[in-house]
Order: sequence, then structure tokens, then C-alpha cells
Amino acid sequence: MQILDIAPVKYEEDKMLILDQTQLPGETVYLEMNTKEDVRDAIYKLKVRGAPAIGVAAGYGLYICARDISAKDYNDFYRQFMDIKNYIASSRPTAVNLFWALNRLEVRVREFENHTIGDQSVQDHKNGKDLQENTENRHLWKNTQIMIKTAILEEAENIRIEDEDACRAMGEYGLTLLRPGMGILTHCNAGTIATAKYGTCLAPLYIGHEKGYGFKVFADETRPLLQGARLTAWELNNAGIDTTLICDNMASIVMKNGWVDAVVVGCDRMAANGDGANKIGTSGLAILAHEYGIPFYMFVPTSTIDMNTKNGDDIHIELRDGDEIYKLWYEKPMAPEGIKTYNPAFDVTAAKYITAVVTEKGILYPPYEESIRKLFEQR
Amino acid sequence: MQILDIAPVKYEEDKMLILDQTQLPGETVYLEMNTKEDVRDAIYKLKVRGAPAIGVAAGYGLYICARDISAKDYNDFYRQFMDIKNYIASSRPTAVNLFWALNRLEVRVREFENHTIGDQSVQDHKNGKDLQENTENRHLWKNTQIMIKTAILEEAENIRIEDEDACRAMGEYGLTLLRPGMGILTHCNAGTIATAKYGTCLAPLYIGHEKGYGFKVFADETRPLLQGARLTAWELNNAGIDTTLICDNMASIVMKNGWVDAVVVGCDRMAANGDGANKIGTSGLAILAHEYGIPFYMFVPTSTIDMNTKNGDDIHIELRDGDEIYKLWYEKPMAPEGIKTYNPAFDVTAAKYITAVVTEKGILYPPYEESIRKLFEQR
Repeated sequence: MQILDIAPVKYEEDKMLILDQTQLPGETVYLEMNTKEDVRDAIYKLKVRGAPAIGVAAGYGLYICARDISAKDYNDFYRQFMDIKNYIASSRPTAVNLFWALNRLEVRVREFENHTIGDQSVQDHKNGKDLQENTENRHLWKNTQIMIKTAILEEAENIRIEDEDACRAMGEYGLTLLRPGMGILTHCNAGTIATAKYGTCLAPLYIGHEKGYGFKVFADETRPLLQGARLTAWELNNAGIDTTLICDNMASIVMKNGWVDAVVVGCDRMAANGDGANKIGTSGLAILAHEYGIPFYMFVPTSTIDMNTKNGDDIHIELRDGDEIYKLWYEKPMAPEGIKTYNPAFDVTAAKYITAVVTEKGILYPPYEESIRKLFEQR
Repeated sequence: MQILDIAPVKYEEDKMLILDQTQLPGETVYLEMNTKEDVRDAIYKLKVRGAPAIGVAAGYGLYICARDISAKDYNDFYRQFMDIKNYIASSRPTAVNLFWALNRLEVRVREFENHTIGDQSVQDHKNGKDLQENTENRHLWKNTQIMIKTAILEEAENIRIEDEDACRAMGEYGLTLLRPGMGILTHCNAGTIATAKYGTCLAPLYIGHEKGYGFKVFADETRPLLQGARLTAWELNNAGIDTTLICDNMASIVMKNGWVDAVVVGCDRMAANGDGANKIGTSGLAILAHEYGIPFYMFVPTSTIDMNTKNGDDIHIELRDGDEIYKLWYEKPMAPEGIKTYNPAFDVTAAKYITAVVTEKGILYPPYEESIRKLFEQR
């Protein structure tokens, strides 16, 4: 399946490239990232999106900026690094993978914090220490700086590789919940281009398809930015999976018609109690599935579970520009000029509506507060 | 409120005009209807839409075609009339008002079916009857034909006038269910341009606004054809009512935020048991409202209740072209070329999710099978 070879974020020959998902399905264009502004903009404008892919982009993005740092010592390096990190972190508030990835890189930098050479050597010089020691210290710091940058890149690579492994594992676990010929409804895009590879909730569909499962998939278009229409329908159609595009408000009739045996969705942040923030509209789908007696599965790599968030009320929901609702994509105005809008990018699905949570470590069942706690204790 | 002066269908100086709602909110354009093709096309392409407005358009539309009939006798007239009637009836299958209005006109025509003059006179002539009697019969039939056409126009006018009265009455009844300052969510457009005047479910909002109720309205954009964004937001905004536009999939979060005190929607056909077909997405909204404990009110003029339809399963749901989902309104393709779609125009809301049914004769409560039956017995 060629579609699985299309990565949302690439690091090749010292260059970071991002697949511009806003141009899909019309054009497949990779953009080179050179500055922190490039990276923040790519995340904010959804050129790269999907919680795990945002994590991967944040990792490489922070690296390509940090590699240009020329600091006089560790403290100087750390300060410059944190400026870039905080700038990239300000791009979007909801997906926890963004902060999780950036923090992983910071941890690697801080492994070097006892290397107090560099600036210190200048002080030593002023205090009359000999020139040779000073020069050695400077040389040592230059080597250390290279080592820090190497560690940052290594961590960015780890994030990508681990995500690919996690997605494959979620696919295998998720497939045990599904049967050949099932009708599957999905929302937004938690597919291969939302992750390092395979996707979260679409991973079992790809693996099942390889095995001839013959799923019939319904893809919600997912307003306002149409990730379902533009990305999920494109991915699955390219892979040869039977896919029907519907508007979000058609989920109820499709379920009532008896065409849906399971709902599978991704997650942008799961709280410790199992409440899960995901693309706007997910909570409504979960309630419909509950009412129609259809299982609702949320695919959540452990990197997306935030044990510091107690429940869904503590999750910051990003509000985006109303233009996305009434202007973007359109030839002519589709709402009156100046109309007030409310444009939340996500909503929170209460744990009580989630049948099971699929992670790369296995499948969790209610009560989630307990099953999530146990999972994290085991690690 | 000037908006209430904008009629979706006008009959002025022997001309039938239809407000082209596909051009709203950008342009306010009236199209003259001259042929049965014009009328069918206007209904099929949603230039005029909303069950009661379709009824009004069908009435005048059938009249402007029937007035051109030049028949040799009643049977000839009836046959030509029925050809036009059946042609217009084929435009859309779900809204019962279409058939109801056309049938009302047919009843008026059939009042003349004992006028067997005309063709008979020709037969008489051949049989040797005198010329003068023959000429008198022809003259009589010409007068009868004028009388039939006058009756048809009268009935079309009655439909419009009765609908305006019914909407005003639904507005007054509906307002008794609402309180000042309430947050109201609505779907699609059941406003003044969906009816002769006032709208069905928007009527209480207009009347409440006149009385200073200060409603805060959330308008679902209503994909694929965006009647909520283009029509409801335009109507309410023009009237000075506080209106916030949301995507359909945001209804759940808006309800969860505690911003919605009541959901009001229209209806395209209500079965005898209270199951109501309305714009696609209505059934999902009703389930969400039920889950969040928010009252869900369906506004249903008695012309929209079809006692011949036992329950929702018997309602024919119109399937429309997939282009509406993935191409219309858009500058660039928003889904992969050739993607399969499912595009039902309506869905059925089960009676159990409907808190109350507002009609022009009063408010009905469950069990609807009984309350609807009683209403029709009283008439």
C-alpha cells in the first residue's frame, strides 16, 4: 500500500520536510522547515496535524532550530533552546503530544547541565587562570554543544520510531475488536499522515485490509476543515478500502440504518479518568453510538494520556478563527458578513461513552481511572 | 422587521416569482416562473425549500401552468391538469406539503367534473343536433374553464394565507414554551423564507424578539447545503437577533457548555405516531438533547402531518447527488475524485426524543399517536 509510504514529517539529508496537508487531496507538496516560525506556522495552520504527527514535527522542528544555536556555555544554550521550545509550544494548546515531545527533548538537554564549562572559562580567565586551560574549556564546550545537538536529534528520531511502533501495535490490538465485513465509522483523520506511520484508529483498518477483512468504512467529512473528506477518504480510497464519505450530521441515520458495527476515533489528549479530547464532533458521535448500542473505540497511544490532567474539564479546548467556518474553501460567502461564530477545534468525550481505549500496550476497559493508573504503574 | 417582508414565493400582477435561495446570503434575486419545468427545477434545486414554502410554490406553480390549458372539455382539462400536477409532484419525495398542496388544487378541479359539456357538443353535432345548441355548449365550457382556473388560483392563495396564519399561531404557542434570555439551538432553516411568513420554529423567536426576550440563538450550519449558515443566520441576523453560527458537529459541545435551553426544529413530514422527518442531522440533535436533558421541540403545521404514514419507517427519504457533499460551494476539490458518497436529505427523529410538537392548533405531548389522532378527530 503506497499510501503508507507517505510520511507527514520527514528528516532526510539534514532537511526537515512537512507534507502540506492543507493542499490535500489536490496536491501532494512537501515544505522545507528552516525556522521556528516555519514550524509553529505549520502546526498552527494544520499543515501538519494529528496529535502523534504534531509530536514528531515538534521533535524535528525543535532540533533544526536548536542545531543553529551557537552558545557560549550550557546556560546560554539552555536559555536559547527554551526560547525556541516555548515558541513552538505556543502553536496549539490541546494535543498533549506537542508538549510531551518538546519535554522529551528538554530532558535530553538537561542531561548536560553539569557541564558548567564555557562561560565559566571566561570568568576563570578574568580571574587570572592560564590561557591554555581556558582554550581547553572552550574546546570542551564546543564538543559538548555538538553532543547536546546530537542527543536532541536522537530523541527526535526516537519519538518518530516509537510512534510508528506504537501505531503498529495499536493496529494489531485494535483488529482483535473487529470482524471481517464490519461497517466502521470514523471521524476526522487519525490515519497514517496523522502519525509517524499507520495511524492510530486507522491502523487496524490497514492491517485488516491486508488480511482481506473487507471493511465498509464511513468517513465523516469533519467540518470545518474537512479532514475526513480531504485526508481520511483520500488515504483509505488510495489503499483500496471501501469508503463512503458522509457529512457529520449523517452519522445518526447511517447508524440507524444498521450500517455501523463500530466507531473508531483518535485522541488528542486523554485525562487520567479516561475523558478524551478529540476533534470537534467526537463527543456527539459517542453519544449516538451509545444510544444505538454500537461500540465506540478510542485509539490512544500512551504519549497522548496526560496523567497531570485529572478529567476532561481540565483540558484546554482550542478556539479557532470563525473564518474557518464561513469562508475557507468557499467560492462565495456561505454566511452573512460579520456573523458571530463559535469554532472549538475539539470536544471532550466523557469516559462513560467510551467502550474501550486501545493503546500500544494493550486494550483498556472501564473503569478507566483504574485501568489507566495500572498501565502507568506497570511502565 | 424587514426580513419578514421577504416572501419566498410571490404572486403579483399575474406573475409568479420565487426568491432564489441558492444565491443567499450573497444576492436577493427573484426568478419568474413560466413553465412546469421552471417550477419543478426551482423545487428540485432548492431555489425554494422548506416544506410549507414548497406547498405554496406548488400551488401557484400548478396554477400558472394550468391557466394556459386550452381544453375541449372537462376530461381533456383534467388530463392536462394531472400531467402538470404529476410532473411537479416528481420534484422531491419527502415533504408532504408538496403533495398536500397539489391535491388541494385537484379537489377544486374535480368540483367541476359533472360539467360534461364541450367535447360532448362536438359529438352532438355529428349526431345532427342543431348548431345553436352546440355553440351554446362551447360557450358554456369556455366559461367553466375560466371558473376552474379561478378556483385553482383561489386555492393557491388559500394555501399561502392559511400557512401565514398557521405560522403566526405556531409562533404564539411556541413562545409559551420559551423564557426570556434562553439559549436556543436550531438546525437548517424553518424560518420566514421556508414558509408563507414567520417560519415554523423561528416564528416564536421573531415574536419573542418583538417582545424583547433577548434570545441567544445557535444556528447549525447544516451541511451539505448550508441552509443554517446561509439562510437562518441571515434571517436572524437581519432581524437583530443574537445569533452564533456553528458547524453541525459542535452541537454537542454547545449543549454540554450549558448554553442551550431548548432545541427548535421544523418538520418535513410527521407520521401518525409522531416520528418526524426533517433535514438530515435532526435525529442526531434530538438524541443529544435527550442525553443532555434539553427539551426538543418540533414545529409541525397540521398540513405536514400525514395520517397515511403510520410511522417513520414508511417515510421515503430523498437521496441527493454526492456532488453536494464534495464539490458544491468549493474552490478546489475537498475530497478525492470519484469518492463514494451517501447523501440523504432528511432523517427521521423517533417520537420518543420529541418533547413536544407545536402545531397551529395547539401543543401536542406524548403519546403522540393519541394526541395526533385526537387533533385530527377534532377537525
